[in-house]
Amino acid sequence: MSEPLTEAGKDLLFRTARTQNGWIDKPVSEALLRELYDLFKFGPTSANCSPARVVFVTSAEGKERLKPALSGNNTEKTMKAPVTAIIGHDLAFYDQLPRLFPHADARSWFTSSEELARTTAFRNGTLQGAYLMLAARSLGLDCGPMSGFDNAKVDAEFFPDSTVKSNFLCNIGYGDPAKVFPRLPRLEFEEACSIV
Amino acid sequence: MSEPLTEAGKDLLFRTARTQNGWIDKPVSEALLRELYDLFKFGPTSANCSPARVVFVTSAEGKERLKPALSGNNTEKTMKAPVTAIIGHDLAFYDQLPRLFPHADARSWFTSSEELARTTAFRNGTLQGAYLMLAARSLGLDCGPMSGFDNAKVDAEFFPDSTVKSNFLCNIGYGDPAKVFPRLPRLEFEEACSIV
Repeated sequence: MSEPLTEAGKDLLFRTARTQNGWIDKPVSEALLRELYDLFKFGPTSANCSPARVVFVTSAEGKERLKPALSGNNTEKTMKAPVTAIIGHDLAFYDQLPRLFPHADARSWFTSSEELARTTAFRNGTLQGAYLMLAARSLGLDCGPMSGFDNAKVDAEFFPDSTVKSNFLCNIGYGDPAKVFPRLPRLEFEEACSIV
Repeated sequence: MSEPLTEAGKDLLFRTARTQNGWIDKPVSEALLRELYDLFKFGPTSANCSPARVVFVTSAEGKERLKPALSGNNTEKTMKAPVTAIIGHDLAFYDQLPRLFPHADARSWFTSSEELARTTAFRNGTLQGAYLMLAARSLGLDCGPMSGFDNAKVDAEFFPDSTVKSNFLCNIGYGDPAKVFPRLPRLEFEEACSIV
């Protein structure tokens, strides 16, 4: 059995963490992005399939390539974020399974069903996107996830001639507390959960 | 800016946490499940849509209802787990948006596109499933997620005449270290990530 997180740790990850809409002028180093990967890569995926593929957009040139896919309020905050992670998933993730899950012929489970492969890539790539966000918070970083953008434009620009498809975007950096919106309500336990 | 997690905290959530296949005989209280919800409910979702619906199966009767949907290695470990969470999502999540996202007519974004509603429910319900697992680890609990089961049988048994669909299952309790498999490899940073 493991010691739980401290109350400060639970606050950091969940209770006081907030989606950010503005960023202070403090860069995020490549070393920290590698540290981020070395945490979130360990989150569980089905048959260790690890389908997430992430582009960390940090340069002005990269941001300009991303800009045409954004709209409305998402544009300005994304242009100003130190990092925008494009979280995608590889629909052909199964080609890595002989290495990632060597004790069974897991590749054949997915090559025999395109629908299962597609659902597995989306489900597990999304889980990994959540691991990425909570790993970022673990490192003292803030997140601003977005799913309102033009996925087809992002795919054409960042994943041409590829089996990788974009899922969602997440700005990463150090948030400006002045730009945070008031916390929205959550469902009550009884509305979202039951015990049987 | 926030203080990062301690190294012990990062170990607890990511580096030493492992998917569990066996469970020690120690119950998980309803109070702890409510504490779990009061953490994972705060994870971000698109327009605060919060589509996850979770059934915590704790009773022998509940486990028997779940059993016909399981197969192979998943059956025994699930029968023995103190809790099996059925993580589902409500395809009609948008009916809660006037309360959860009151400052815009967000409901109409989804009622006008069944495809967008379905994708949003799956993506955000899956994110919440990941938040649930990392919140469980934050509380010192262990997880054993599974997606190889008969979703249609689970839906018929636990969500009849409902817009809720099952996504994945997650056993929750205190893991038996003797039943953990060796850690499988992960992709290198350069295989999964790029910086532009």
